[in-house]
Amino acid sequence: MQRALSVLRESGNRPNFPEWYQTVVREADMAEPSPVRGSMIIKPWGYGVWEQIQKILDGRIKDTGHENCYFPLFIPLSFIAKEAQHVEGFAKEMAVVTHHRLKMIDGKLQPDPTAKLEEPLVVRPTSETIIGDAFSRWIRSHRDLPMLINQWANVVRWEMRTRLFLRTAEFLWQEGHTAHADAEDAMGETLKMLEVYRSFSEETLAMPVIAGEKSANERFPGADKTYSIEAMMQDGKALQAGTSHYLGTHFAEAQNIRFQNDAGELLFCHTTSWGVSTRLIGGVIMSHGDDDGLRLPPAIAPRQIVIVPMLRGKPEDADVLTFGEKLAADLRQQTAFGERLRVLLDTKDIRSAEKRWNWVRRGAPIIIEIGPRDVAGGAVTFMRRDALRDGDKVKSTNAPRDQFIADAPRLLAEIQGQLFTEAKTRLDSNIRRDVTTMAELEAFFGASTGDDDEAAEFKGWVRVAWSRPDGHELQQIENALKALKLSIRNAPLDQPSNYANCIFTGAPGVEEILIARSY
Amino acid sequence: MQRALSVLRESGNRPNFPEWYQTVVREADMAEPSPVRGSMIIKPWGYGVWEQIQKILDGRIKDTGHENCYFPLFIPLSFIAKEAQHVEGFAKEMAVVTHHRLKMIDGKLQPDPTAKLEEPLVVRPTSETIIGDAFSRWIRSHRDLPMLINQWANVVRWEMRTRLFLRTAEFLWQEGHTAHADAEDAMGETLKMLEVYRSFSEETLAMPVIAGEKSANERFPGADKTYSIEAMMQDGKALQAGTSHYLGTHFAEAQNIRFQNDAGELLFCHTTSWGVSTRLIGGVIMSHGDDDGLRLPPAIAPRQIVIVPMLRGKPEDADVLTFGEKLAADLRQQTAFGERLRVLLDTKDIRSAEKRWNWVRRGAPIIIEIGPRDVAGGAVTFMRRDALRDGDKVKSTNAPRDQFIADAPRLLAEIQGQLFTEAKTRLDSNIRRDVTTMAELEAFFGASTGDDDEAAEFKGWVRVAWSRPDGHELQQIENALKALKLSIRNAPLDQPSNYANCIFTGAPGVEEILIARSY
Repeated sequence: MQRALSVLRESGNRPNFPEWYQTVVREADMAEPSPVRGSMIIKPWGYGVWEQIQKILDGRIKDTGHENCYFPLFIPLSFIAKEAQHVEGFAKEMAVVTHHRLKMIDGKLQPDPTAKLEEPLVVRPTSETIIGDAFSRWIRSHRDLPMLINQWANVVRWEMRTRLFLRTAEFLWQEGHTAHADAEDAMGETLKMLEVYRSFSEETLAMPVIAGEKSANERFPGADKTYSIEAMMQDGKALQAGTSHYLGTHFAEAQNIRFQNDAGELLFCHTTSWGVSTRLIGGVIMSHGDDDGLRLPPAIAPRQIVIVPMLRGKPEDADVLTFGEKLAADLRQQTAFGERLRVLLDTKDIRSAEKRWNWVRRGAPIIIEIGPRDVAGGAVTFMRRDALRDGDKVKSTNAPRDQFIADAPRLLAEIQGQLFTEAKTRLDSNIRRDVTTMAELEAFFGASTGDDDEAAEFKGWVRVAWSRPDGHELQQIENALKALKLSIRNAPLDQPSNYANCIFTGAPGVEEILIARSY
Repeated sequence: MQRALSVLRESGNRPNFPEWYQTVVREADMAEPSPVRGSMIIKPWGYGVWEQIQKILDGRIKDTGHENCYFPLFIPLSFIAKEAQHVEGFAKEMAVVTHHRLKMIDGKLQPDPTAKLEEPLVVRPTSETIIGDAFSRWIRSHRDLPMLINQWANVVRWEMRTRLFLRTAEFLWQEGHTAHADAEDAMGETLKMLEVYRSFSEETLAMPVIAGEKSANERFPGADKTYSIEAMMQDGKALQAGTSHYLGTHFAEAQNIRFQNDAGELLFCHTTSWGVSTRLIGGVIMSHGDDDGLRLPPAIAPRQIVIVPMLRGKPEDADVLTFGEKLAADLRQQTAFGERLRVLLDTKDIRSAEKRWNWVRRGAPIIIEIGPRDVAGGAVTFMRRDALRDGDKVKSTNAPRDQFIADAPRLLAEIQGQLFTEAKTRLDSNIRRDVTTMAELEAFFGASTGDDDEAAEFKGWVRVAWSRPDGHELQQIENALKALKLSIRNAPLDQPSNYANCIFTGAPGVEEILIARSY
């Protein structure tokens, strides 16, 4: 999908989607690459979005009975070794700490050879093993169950190809880890948190998703079942935006997490884990951004309304500022999404036109400009970021000040709804259900598998029936899809009552699955 | 100071202060040692306290104009090397990442020799250098100043002797980093954030502190001025609870942080940094804990009121639970410290007496027990954790339900005030001002410098005049103090108008300083 960003319009350069994404991240002041390969610096506007995500999702995680903890950054190599023995498909790309001191040797600062650790420490790629170890000590009786723990933390996975927010060596996330007395309770938890992710994604991020179960080969290593939410980006690719795993008793067996039941028997716990990360921010950008930059859903915008005073270094500037301060203060008395409005009067010492475009690019939901005429007329002139333009022209609306203040919560809710509706329409209208053979699938997606995958045409997803093959057969199917740069995203929870034949095997279908290109 | 913790009373074991501290941390379910040497697991109740601290302090940091960012965990060795050249007293105990992959070699998982990093990465002990690098790119003009950035993050310093919350290899903190056009503005910032820490510590943690300037030898390496807040623990020792540094242009010069002023000249910025950490939680424990465990100031208690229903497996249990739920819901409509009350109805399946003592040990400010008699009489029976006992007997108060609900905010404010007053009285009445010679100082503190420093008698602090010697002379004084296990804590901001002679040099005094044992 070709996109033009207004900042680039002048040059006539119409970037492809990945270029457009990078430009939005930069121009919206969300993040930048850091001097450490694969890591990013999350700038105030980007981190502000993460803070809103954290606050709201944390509330939902607590409302469902979970408590937050903090576990160590470093994991003893022996813990990882235990997992490696235990888990097939164990990933080995991790940052390893081997020394605990630097020393100046021959005028060069380097790891001190005399300060080599006896046992190397791994920087957590996830806290599964160290939390499991704690569970094995904390859980004694059925009275301790369910144990419902969550952690907000940074984790590190050594990634070769990185992209800001979407895939970075270090990222921020939350990881839930729970232990239960039986499979039913653990499965209930797994699906409950999947639903928390789905509703959070749709209601707060305005990002529609399809919740479903991953195929056997796409499960988290060691999991009995893995579920995901998948969102459609504006280039038609799928973004896996969150996962929830039912781990059976596998991890409990490896880590000796046991409890005594009513009858005094010692049994293994059934455990779960689930997580979302700063990747969600990438999803928000690719869901809602447009040719003028980012558009933020008001529920997570660090500033929902930005007031730009038009100052001219003249005496009437003082009145404009006073008017702006009063307007901001009155707006802050209003409530949307259960919180006081987040309003900024931008008094930075730069030209007001530049300021306005900075906020357009950053995606502030409502941008107000006030000048002497507004002050005199007791009015405000505002732009809605979700509907910035009428053709090429920028649209603005004039409203009496008091009416605007009274309307602001409704306006913000409307913008939130509008962004969701746009994305939902895109998702719903771009899932093809008429593909019935592998050849049709190839024909449909094939046209865009040129050399330049990055500039691929918008295709959307395909929903097909299959016979849920497994083992070697499944592997062959996934290899064939991979050759087309496709993958099975998930089997949606919402299934029909009868099925076409399997697109791969021709056998009677038992389930529908989504196939797509993905991040 | 000898303390008896009720959980230990039965054994007749009267622990010394460090033992008491460890016991409280454990019995209050705050944290535990982790399998990784020097790191801790912060448990839900302890992390809940950190969340309250974060939320309230973050609000104050934002109210003073700062924005949060996130910078990478890893710092290139070259950045650290630059600092090492630049900074005297540079600490070298850091965790060093040297490999990015694990490999199974001869059946043993180990760092893969083929995945050795070209340049080792250091796990941030502080983000000074990586934030300075960003500032050098972000700051161009005086319009970009002041640049006011804060970060909440985990940091790692390889410590040999660790103690939960007080000194751990990994800890959580916030670090503010700011850049300014001139010394005056930067000094203003340094003192503003010191004042934020002072008021936060006193108002929110109920922990009185003395804010002042550190001596030349105790400055942050590379700083022009270092300020601290110092709190008096219940063993009489000082805890440095927060620091704020004016860094002059030293870091700006090392990292090339420059701006163009109005006149078009390129000048170095003046920078500051300031931080507090999970150490504050250690301070809260050692300020307010008593023989029955922790006492939490209501402003930071994860649960301010805990309702323990006395259930007996009888039909009237249902009424007790209904009464408890309604009571909790009504209390949650009340507000204290600007937030809805945090209330828990503890329905865990354990004996109510055990529950009550769990909450006493954890320091929940108000604990309510309700039984059939309370339900019948429309009353509640509650304990105030700040005044749990009358002699050895546990005190409880009965109040009509509705009156208790109406009173709850005032009760919580009263408890907050009471904890502060107790600690403030202890601080104020334990700073001796009548010590005028080094011999007197030695005589005063000397009695307690036995072999067993851990069991040292309560001494408090000494406030003396000095002539502010520097260089070699200062070093000698600090060595002499160190031999007595003493140190200069700070020169309080609040100074008299005239001074006695210097306790060290006999010269006319120019400043008063605090001398104490410390953590």
